[in-house]
Amino acid sequence: MQPAEFFPTVRIDRASPTPMYRQVETGLRRAILSGRLRAGVRVPGMRAYARHLGVAAVTVITAYDQLVAEGFLAVRPGVGTIVSDLTGHPAAVSDGAHRPQSLPAPRRPIATRPGPRRPFFEPQASEWPPVEIDFRTGSTRLDLFPHRAWERCLRAAWRELAAEPAGIATTYLHPSGDPRLREALAEYLGASRGVHCEPDDIVITAGAQAAMRIGVELWVTGRGPLAVEDPGGPHLFRALEAGGAELAHVPVDQRGLRLELLPRESAGVLVTPSWQYPAGGTMPIGRRLQLLTWAARRGAVVLEDDCDSELRYVGHPIASLQGLAGQCGATVLYVGTFSKVLFPGLRTGYAVVPGPVRELFLARLEASYRGPGALEQRTLAGFIAGGHFHRHLARLRAAFAERQSLALTALDRHLGGLVEAAPAPAGAHLVVRITDPCVTATALNRAAVALGVAIEPMSLSRALPAPDDAFVLHYARHGLAELEDGIRRLRRAFDVSGSASTWSRGAASA
Amino acid sequence: MQPAEFFPTVRIDRASPTPMYRQVETGLRRAILSGRLRAGVRVPGMRAYARHLGVAAVTVITAYDQLVAEGFLAVRPGVGTIVSDLTGHPAAVSDGAHRPQSLPAPRRPIATRPGPRRPFFEPQASEWPPVEIDFRTGSTRLDLFPHRAWERCLRAAWRELAAEPAGIATTYLHPSGDPRLREALAEYLGASRGVHCEPDDIVITAGAQAAMRIGVELWVTGRGPLAVEDPGGPHLFRALEAGGAELAHVPVDQRGLRLELLPRESAGVLVTPSWQYPAGGTMPIGRRLQLLTWAARRGAVVLEDDCDSELRYVGHPIASLQGLAGQCGATVLYVGTFSKVLFPGLRTGYAVVPGPVRELFLARLEASYRGPGALEQRTLAGFIAGGHFHRHLARLRAAFAERQSLALTALDRHLGGLVEAAPAPAGAHLVVRITDPCVTATALNRAAVALGVAIEPMSLSRALPAPDDAFVLHYARHGLAELEDGIRRLRRAFDVSGSASTWSRGAASA
Repeated sequence: MQPAEFFPTVRIDRASPTPMYRQVETGLRRAILSGRLRAGVRVPGMRAYARHLGVAAVTVITAYDQLVAEGFLAVRPGVGTIVSDLTGHPAAVSDGAHRPQSLPAPRRPIATRPGPRRPFFEPQASEWPPVEIDFRTGSTRLDLFPHRAWERCLRAAWRELAAEPAGIATTYLHPSGDPRLREALAEYLGASRGVHCEPDDIVITAGAQAAMRIGVELWVTGRGPLAVEDPGGPHLFRALEAGGAELAHVPVDQRGLRLELLPRESAGVLVTPSWQYPAGGTMPIGRRLQLLTWAARRGAVVLEDDCDSELRYVGHPIASLQGLAGQCGATVLYVGTFSKVLFPGLRTGYAVVPGPVRELFLARLEASYRGPGALEQRTLAGFIAGGHFHRHLARLRAAFAERQSLALTALDRHLGGLVEAAPAPAGAHLVVRITDPCVTATALNRAAVALGVAIEPMSLSRALPAPDDAFVLHYARHGLAELEDGIRRLRRAFDVSGSASTWSRGAASA
Repeated sequence: MQPAEFFPTVRIDRASPTPMYRQVETGLRRAILSGRLRAGVRVPGMRAYARHLGVAAVTVITAYDQLVAEGFLAVRPGVGTIVSDLTGHPAAVSDGAHRPQSLPAPRRPIATRPGPRRPFFEPQASEWPPVEIDFRTGSTRLDLFPHRAWERCLRAAWRELAAEPAGIATTYLHPSGDPRLREALAEYLGASRGVHCEPDDIVITAGAQAAMRIGVELWVTGRGPLAVEDPGGPHLFRALEAGGAELAHVPVDQRGLRLELLPRESAGVLVTPSWQYPAGGTMPIGRRLQLLTWAARRGAVVLEDDCDSELRYVGHPIASLQGLAGQCGATVLYVGTFSKVLFPGLRTGYAVVPGPVRELFLARLEASYRGPGALEQRTLAGFIAGGHFHRHLARLRAAFAERQSLALTALDRHLGGLVEAAPAPAGAHLVVRITDPCVTATALNRAAVALGVAIEPMSLSRALPAPDDAFVLHYARHGLAELEDGIRRLRRAFDVSGSASTWSRGAASA
């Protein structure tokens, strides 16, 4: 047992509405960031620490789990749980010092592609064929949606709007969006996402893409390339290129963007640190601080796309880059959307815009499309303020976790030996790797579409060369029967598209 | 009495749902456009013609009135009603032949202003102060809005959307907008606006401005300046400049854009032919054809902003440029919005996009903001298809005509001798000219704001030099008592801001 003086001090307020585990977690995070708890130090055993603090053991366990997920703590088998080495912390890092010499020189951005010539989602559906079971990302279902609560909010919103004399429905006087929605969002973002903002810092936009476009126009275009993750979101990238951005595609690893490959001349970096889209993986605190420090030194902006952050099944969502930016002196544009957790047709996203550029940002917004409709905004404001959004997220998480588990079971049952997929602690899709060297994801998808099921080859999300051996399986939209049916059809698609070896394996398992 | 053979032949179908006066009007319009009825020919007396056709006299009177309003016919005192000289008709015009030699050379476009630095509608409201009585354009009230019908459409729309498996709410699969809304709009535009289109030609956008921006990006930017009307809509112009357009401001007269002043190198022309915004005046058919012929020869696009077309109190709205474009070989992007006749917070407009560029247009749209929310679109579809929109417009027209008449009476009562304002057959505002040479519209507005009432100096809508002697008085938002009160306060503002002469006149009338 460790001596009493080794227990890190955290302040616990038993009267606070903040859950106890959050208080422990916050206290420990502060101690680590401030340097009071130093890298390599072993933190106390959970049970002993719980007794010391006078809380339940599960409280400390939950706090430790979250800090491990965020990268503040690391589990060393045979040693215990230790404080991570947060290289990259402003106090410790020196620019470039951590770039290994043996790595390739920073990649030059790929040639800028011309603006889009055709819509991605073809109206004629030749590139995006309709299928019975759709495992591609980008659409949702309303089977888990709280219809009654939403309809109540809708009716209340319309009544409110109709009674406002110079409100958001009848004037152009609120370029930054519905004041009610910005209030509700500021509270939500502060409590759930570790985002530091006031309602006035928030700008409501017609989806995340719209906010990103303005961010790129303001900070990046004409000043240098925008570094983006590879793989990444192809629709968003197309939109940014259409807006004039020159993209530099930088590979990711399990902990997000590989900072050592960032082109020096980048004017901005677009990242999905909470849950890398689409490869998965959370950027740990060390790399977060390193990225922010790098950006601050270079004068580059960080565009934080906080997609899928709400869909975390293990622990709670990880604190945002935006919340850490201040201590590093970095500029972060934090962008979120409701398209994924509510529905895309809502067309509502938001940005937390740094004060100095807020006016410019609004001027650009006003000169383009002025944000989503009044009714959507006010309905959403009521939905969040009334606690429905919080409850809906909890319900989604539980359902998605269950669906993921079903999907993994079905993959194992029907495609065992042909593919590999690891459980994911967040998001709404799995990354599935094809282990059979004779079947590409593109060929598999082609065969699958003919059988009424579509997957999303990972190659659609890549600009850098990579093997065509993985696909995205968006499980969140489907219930048990459909997941099972769709994955069974994938097995048939394998048999059709595969090599002789696949055939024989197919025959053996049939 | 004219001999029987002078009665122009028009086909009347008594079983048709098209009103009789529309049939007479359409028949005569076709006869004029085809050359069967030639310029200078006197059309038959209304009563005799009515007897000849076997219709009521009011039918012919209504048809003639409309054709006079459109410029196909002209009333010559002492002569009667004659067919206008449609110089500019493709069969008759030769490019440049009608440009008078004595006029100044085409104006060079004014220097391109940098993109917007600050939002127009200031959140801090310093440039757009809130007032009790607001005669500025750009906002509306919902006092005439059919709330019950809208709420019913809203509920029905949500139920429909929630039940659609891969519809506009849950996917990105419809970049051109809700198919239902496009169907309803195609029918409405064909019947009411003389626009030739199928549902597939229509693209739903987040307001008219968004559609215009894409049109300018596709056809104009980098190819030459965009000719715009002066005065014109400053918000729209700011948005287009932010999108990279170089604007050439061309003066208007009572019949719209002065074509003889169009810069030869223009790559596009943006016009409000139905009711020039904000000066008023309808572009007659002769000038319409001349503009289209000019554009076809130059390879310039015509951007038709059909604002205020629905708010015509005399006759019905005039047929669009888009409907005439085919016969001239011109490219027209027809753009409309629901912001003015419904409410701005709806954020919904539309474009009728020529077939050859439709795919490009959609690709740009998808890369920017993807149109308005699903709920707005479906609600509107039901609102139009259910006949509510039609009824709402009829109600608006009646109410606005009454309010305009009240405003004119009040102006005469309180500001007689200080200002001049002519009745307007369309729109939702009056242009008021200050006859007192010592009072500018800007000074008057400043004094008025201090008294709780705001007007909109015409200078805000101008880029070319002009006297600061006129303002816009948007009457549509206010009922009788407020109109009276606001205009009474304007009189006090006159007394405060005016010269000694104004003071003495003010004292005399007090």
